[in-house]
Amino acid sequence: MNRGIEPIETLCSQLARLPGIGSKSALRLAYHILDMPKSSAKELAAAISNACDKVHHCSICGNYTDVDPCRVCTDKTRSDDTICVVEDAKDVLAMEKMREFRGKYHVLGGVISPMDGIGPDDIRIKELIARVRQGGVKEIIIATNPNIEGEATSSYIARLLKPLGVRVTRIAHGIPIGGNIEYADEMTILKAMEGRREL
Amino acid sequence: MNRGIEPIETLCSQLARLPGIGSKSALRLAYHILDMPKSSAKELAAAISNACDKVHHCSICGNYTDVDPCRVCTDKTRSDDTICVVEDAKDVLAMEKMREFRGKYHVLGGVISPMDGIGPDDIRIKELIARVRQGGVKEIIIATNPNIEGEATSSYIARLLKPLGVRVTRIAHGIPIGGNIEYADEMTILKAMEGRREL
Repeated sequence: MNRGIEPIETLCSQLARLPGIGSKSALRLAYHILDMPKSSAKELAAAISNACDKVHHCSICGNYTDVDPCRVCTDKTRSDDTICVVEDAKDVLAMEKMREFRGKYHVLGGVISPMDGIGPDDIRIKELIARVRQGGVKEIIIATNPNIEGEATSSYIARLLKPLGVRVTRIAHGIPIGGNIEYADEMTILKAMEGRREL
Repeated sequence: MNRGIEPIETLCSQLARLPGIGSKSALRLAYHILDMPKSSAKELAAAISNACDKVHHCSICGNYTDVDPCRVCTDKTRSDDTICVVEDAKDVLAMEKMREFRGKYHVLGGVISPMDGIGPDDIRIKELIARVRQGGVKEIIIATNPNIEGEATSSYIARLLKPLGVRVTRIAHGIPIGGNIEYADEMTILKAMEGRREL
């Protein structure tokens, strides 16, 4: 037990607040941190503190950045006429891994979810409309997740944007590459059938 | 990709140095930390930094503590005549969970392991001998792990301590409570047979 060793208790409870880290893992991590050379532990603390101080949301796309506007928004080799709309910053990472998309992004910072009290005004939809109104945008690709909230958010955005004369598309849903039809759920198969294309 | 966002890259590489956290988990944690209120992230950084500053090894038993000697060593309700010898500080936690042992501890800070270049002088054996020589100790319970290094360390310590007229014991090895004989390995069964007791 750590009763009495307040700095260890505090460290454990702080670590246990991270996702996927329960009280046992937190304890293991805390002891590992204590076992590390003091300079390494200080570097870890400084990295956390520094990231919070220096990283903020890009004023244009809403992605995390340490400069404003972010490097994607100011990248001259990327086209301004296509904007990919995603739920959060991690989705931008996933999209960039593909190395194919050369447009810009718009990070909503969430999805419409009445159950959680999140309405259209709580996510960055207004900012998206403003970007489209500024002109120069030909296509909005909506890449929210294929679940109830993601679909609802997608329809909501499409309804607002279409009158502005911009093409609004949704990424395809279907059997993932390397996936197995046998094990696919019925919704995925339904979407794959609906989205079928001529060969 | 985070290319360019140096504070995020640094945070990820720092987090990935923790045990059980690979590059994907590190990324997930880094984004979670960025998503947290800034004050919470600062608290986490401060907890790490503070633990490193305030926690050190007890000058008597070698366990982690924020006061010296530690609270176990100065606890008047615990007997001085029994010392439980363990490999590292986490083992003290495990022992204390039992809530039965009311003696003191001695944390070796490792085990003798010629393969890793760790000899008897690299762990706190001298300090243990000194504690026994000071008198008042009747029994030394050796609770190193039941592996080659743990056994070797145990025998080494026993050989040094026995001439000092102290009782040296080793914790029992056998089938764990709730364990299944069918699935126990042969070494465990051998130890369980060797350690059998009259009913």
